[in-house]
Amino acid sequence: MAGGSEVDRLIELMAKLPGLGPVSAQRAVLVMIRKKAQIMAPLAKAMAEVEATVRECAICGNITTHQFCDICRNPKRDQHLLCVVESVADLWAMERGAYFKGRYFVLGGVLSALDGVTPESLRIPKLVEQVIEGEMAEVILALNATMDGQTTAHYIADQLGSAANLTSLAQGVPIGGELNYLDDGTITAALSARKAF
Amino acid sequence: MAGGSEVDRLIELMAKLPGLGPVSAQRAVLVMIRKKAQIMAPLAKAMAEVEATVRECAICGNITTHQFCDICRNPKRDQHLLCVVESVADLWAMERGAYFKGRYFVLGGVLSALDGVTPESLRIPKLVEQVIEGEMAEVILALNATMDGQTTAHYIADQLGSAANLTSLAQGVPIGGELNYLDDGTITAALSARKAF
Repeated sequence: MAGGSEVDRLIELMAKLPGLGPVSAQRAVLVMIRKKAQIMAPLAKAMAEVEATVRECAICGNITTHQFCDICRNPKRDQHLLCVVESVADLWAMERGAYFKGRYFVLGGVLSALDGVTPESLRIPKLVEQVIEGEMAEVILALNATMDGQTTAHYIADQLGSAANLTSLAQGVPIGGELNYLDDGTITAALSARKAF
Repeated sequence: MAGGSEVDRLIELMAKLPGLGPVSAQRAVLVMIRKKAQIMAPLAKAMAEVEATVRECAICGNITTHQFCDICRNPKRDQHLLCVVESVADLWAMERGAYFKGRYFVLGGVLSALDGVTPESLRIPKLVEQVIEGEMAEVILALNATMDGQTTAHYIADQLGSAANLTSLAQGVPIGGELNYLDDGTITAALSARKAF
């Protein structure tokens, strides 16, 4: 293309990221080059640093640059409240809400016979061990409201038995949602779980 | 946030790129971390390389990692056909079309009394020198169809005088355009420049 092979290679790699296509990757690279000192140099440095140091938290499976992640190392987080999520992206989404003050356990997927995902590959035995040894008061199953997510939640509930008080996220109308645009399942769930006004 | 300070810093820097916000930067960083060997490592390397070597082509002002850019060094490009563009982004847009086979001259902006952009800061004297010394047969003024772009085109035309045959991009209905959605100016331009069917 136009910018020489090194620049083209950078555009090509940027275009592989989600949310960026070939044209928006070009635009991003042009901005980087125009702001070399403010964006490109620190970005290259940050990326190399993260690439060299990033790993899975040994306790929860979150992404960290230390042995344990910031959340697991934070003594202010409730050690007896555990939230089970499917992925690191889900964990980050929960953290954006800044409401939950316990710890997490990242499964790294959901059970799927079709894709050959077994309880062992999801670290479910490790979760059971953590819940029992950590004397968890409550385990929140914050799995996606999909078929596989709910199957996995039921399997975990079976495995945990009465080891902890199990809860799941409420289902209903999303904040800002318009009934007109909601699917039948959501309306039914919201209706059956209605509460005093 | 959730991923530790180094990861957060990377997300923050990525979010400064055009087309990415805080949430899409998170998603991009998660993909990078998941595909460390295929995306993150080569991306960090490519970025550091480009950061160290990128510069302006000494002839046309395009971005390059050598003294002269790929286009200026390409002997197959017509040396006597010059296309004047406002920015490197515009040059790349022209190249995406893969129709133009001459060389470029990047102004780096347009004249603007308000922003204090003078003919000297746009390298217009250098353009005049190149057109005369390079014995250009044709100079295409491919500036944006904005007020400042057209003012700059007129100024360049004045400076070049009869040194070369001056042309500009055709104005009219864009490919795939629906008349219903076009502005009055475009319809008028397309109508006044109508051609035999």
